[in-house]
Amino acid sequence: MECIFCKIIRGEIKSYKIYEDEHVVAFLDINPINPGHTLVVPKKHVENILDADPETISHVFIAVQKVAKLLMEKLGAKGVNIIHNAGREANQEIMHLHVHVIPRYSKDDIKLVDWWRSVVKKMDLEEIYRKIIG
Amino acid sequence: MECIFCKIIRGEIKSYKIYEDEHVVAFLDINPINPGHTLVVPKKHVENILDADPETISHVFIAVQKVAKLLMEKLGAKGVNIIHNAGREANQEIMHLHVHVIPRYSKDDIKLVDWWRSVVKKMDLEEIYRKIIG
Repeated sequence: MECIFCKIIRGEIKSYKIYEDEHVVAFLDINPINPGHTLVVPKKHVENILDADPETISHVFIAVQKVAKLLMEKLGAKGVNIIHNAGREANQEIMHLHVHVIPRYSKDDIKLVDWWRSVVKKMDLEEIYRKIIG
Repeated sequence: MECIFCKIIRGEIKSYKIYEDEHVVAFLDINPINPGHTLVVPKKHVENILDADPETISHVFIAVQKVAKLLMEKLGAKGVNIIHNAGREANQEIMHLHVHVIPRYSKDDIKLVDWWRSVVKKMDLEEIYRKIIG
C-alpha cells in the first residue's frame, strides 16, 4: 500500500495545506487535539527521525518553527507543543516522518500536564546512567 | 534568578550527562516518564524553538537523533517520543530550550495514546484553514 503522506505531498489526496517549501509540507491534522493542530512532513519519504539524514532533520524542524509562528499569529495561540513519535512502539501510526505542531490557548482543555504528572515515576538515575554510559 | 540549565551546562549543578558536543548537552531528566528519559538542550541560551536561530534548531534536533539511537542501543528501547513544549501556556516550565527524548519499551505504561485519544476533537477544518491562510 502506498504511503498516504506521499500522496498528500503530491496532491493526490486533498489536505488543508498551510505551508510548503522546497523540502517540507505542512497540513492540518484531520484528528486535531486543538484548533490549528498541524503536521509538518518532509517531501522526502523517511520513516521517522531515526532514519532521517541531518539535512532532512534540519529542514523539518526549521519549518516547524515557521508553522508554529504562523499559527500563533493567525489563531492567537500562546505557545505550541511539538511532538514526534518515532516507531510503532512509540505510537507512530503513519510511517512517514511527521511532527505534530499543537497550538495552545489560554484555558484550553488538552490536559497535557495532567497526563505527564500521572506517568512520572521515581527511578534510580545512577543505575540507568551506568547502563547508558558504561 | 539564573537559568538552571545554563548552570548544568557549565557543570555548576550535577547532572547525569549522557551526550555532549560543541553546541548541545543531553542529560537525564530528574522527573522521568520512562527509564532513560533525557533532555537535549543547546549550550546557547534560547527560550524555546520560537526564538531559536536556524543553526541552533538544527544542532539540537540532529543531537536528538543521536541521543535517541544511543538510548535504543543501550537500554533496548523500541522507539522514542520527542516532545518540545514552547511557551508557558504549552506547559514549558524551565525557560531554556529543551527537548524531551522519551524511550519507549514494549508494554510500558506511559499511556500516551490513551491521553491522545481522550483529547482529540471534531473540528471544522475548513474554517480553521481559512483563518490561517485568509
